[in-house]
Amino acid sequence: MEDLYPSRKNNKPEIIERKDPVIHSHPTEKGPLSDEQVNFYQKNGFLQIENFFSEEEVSKMQRGIFELQDSSKDVESDKVIREPQSDEIRSVFHVHNDDEYFKKVTNDQRILDIVHYLLGSDVYIHQSRINYKPGFTGKEFDWHSDFETWHVEDGMPRMRAISLSIALSDNYTFNGPLMLIPGSQNYFVSCVGETPEDNYKESLKKQKLGVPDQNSLRWLAENGGGISVPTGKAGAITLFESNTMHGSNGNITPYSRNNLFLVFNSVENQLVQPFSGGKERPEFIAVREGTRSLSFN
Amino acid sequence: MEDLYPSRKNNKPEIIERKDPVIHSHPTEKGPLSDEQVNFYQKNGFLQIENFFSEEEVSKMQRGIFELQDSSKDVESDKVIREPQSDEIRSVFHVHNDDEYFKKVTNDQRILDIVHYLLGSDVYIHQSRINYKPGFTGKEFDWHSDFETWHVEDGMPRMRAISLSIALSDNYTFNGPLMLIPGSQNYFVSCVGETPEDNYKESLKKQKLGVPDQNSLRWLAENGGGISVPTGKAGAITLFESNTMHGSNGNITPYSRNNLFLVFNSVENQLVQPFSGGKERPEFIAVREGTRSLSFN
Repeated sequence: MEDLYPSRKNNKPEIIERKDPVIHSHPTEKGPLSDEQVNFYQKNGFLQIENFFSEEEVSKMQRGIFELQDSSKDVESDKVIREPQSDEIRSVFHVHNDDEYFKKVTNDQRILDIVHYLLGSDVYIHQSRINYKPGFTGKEFDWHSDFETWHVEDGMPRMRAISLSIALSDNYTFNGPLMLIPGSQNYFVSCVGETPEDNYKESLKKQKLGVPDQNSLRWLAENGGGISVPTGKAGAITLFESNTMHGSNGNITPYSRNNLFLVFNSVENQLVQPFSGGKERPEFIAVREGTRSLSFN
Repeated sequence: MEDLYPSRKNNKPEIIERKDPVIHSHPTEKGPLSDEQVNFYQKNGFLQIENFFSEEEVSKMQRGIFELQDSSKDVESDKVIREPQSDEIRSVFHVHNDDEYFKKVTNDQRILDIVHYLLGSDVYIHQSRINYKPGFTGKEFDWHSDFETWHVEDGMPRMRAISLSIALSDNYTFNGPLMLIPGSQNYFVSCVGETPEDNYKESLKKQKLGVPDQNSLRWLAENGGGISVPTGKAGAITLFESNTMHGSNGNITPYSRNNLFLVFNSVENQLVQPFSGGKERPEFIAVREGTRSLSFN
């Protein structure tokens, strides 16, 4: 298969124009979003919806994530990611499959309707995780396009996936919130370097490969809309296109920042041999196939 | 001299009530600030004034700091502080004395009028520096009370000093701006541990000692006004009381954050033998005496 978005293959970064639509359903199709919301997503590559979940739903999810954090405390697994300088759990992966409660949340019809509309097809879960960004010690997450990683490391061929973050704590400007570069979904930043075989183990703690160069980031921010920081109460959702450039600063405040993070991929965009040119990793294939088997199509 | 604010002497943190007024001039005295500004400072321990300097003045100061950064590039000196993981200059100290231009800025009559009013006496410069927080790689600065450091390490007896930050780049919520805990000026957090003799060399890069415990910080934020993040255009000034708890997150955005930072101390509050119980450091005495000789009294 032709590599439309080559990355980590050269020693010089490059900015490539997007070759896929941002919204994949037919323009005449009516979806669950308002025109204003659709236009915002098309233009900026993300969309926040406040109060998407009720207070009761939020409380239940909050209990759920801390129960899972507690029960994962002593678990040694590729699915449990810890902070670089401590043993605190930073993420628990694959919760849409391993946890009965979060399996239900993932199947929320309101979410699926939106995602079906934006991706213009049936979808399946490419990845799911709970992110715990603790107060005081939460570390920054460097700028990246999720698509770049999924393309190079997981073999996702086209830009037809969407990330959904469900805020499970109040997001302020100061507790390391998600930052996005509006308009960046329209440009693929081809990163320099090659992918070491075991990169996926390290990159979840501290992204090193697939980090765009500073000139490209500056260009994206200057040519796009600067930097956006959606803040709001727990229960808000933020949808962002797979290629929208994002990152977050650290968090020295007492306020933790937790979210449930789901990635939906179109069934028309199923994974192929990774574009890194490297060997597939056996553990990773296992996780991926597990993921595939949960598709909603 | 009695140590009214003991810190780094015990193994248990403690919160001590402030024993000094926040505003030191006589209540009937009229100063250059409005009643609203005075009340804000009294209540919150800080005050921001937008557009304090004109665009022309800002441009001149901006040129000044980059000229100084450039001319300090190869300087090996205790006054030039670099980033922990690179050689980029993070701060240049003592600019009110070493640089003719910044000597003039420091003597700005509008600033001196405000500081005289808040400290209720003549003042002198305790410390001056330019802070460069570069884009992409600017690191966080842990929570601290400046007074705690100056008291323990420099021998500042009472809370009768004020910090002034002149914004020389636009401050957004996302480029690692100053965060303050409103109301924290009224409580002294006695920190644990002892001061190693050469702490001042390391602490300017990455504060380790004099960092309050997490419970005290949480208490301050909950009992005060949470966390405030004054943002605004270059040319704004932020005044904050010596004991107001503050810190800043890192900065992965392309936008640098630079400021000129001046600390004014009351001539009634001159330094004594440091309260750490340790030995004085010869280099430090030299800097301090240089500083004293520039007093405005």
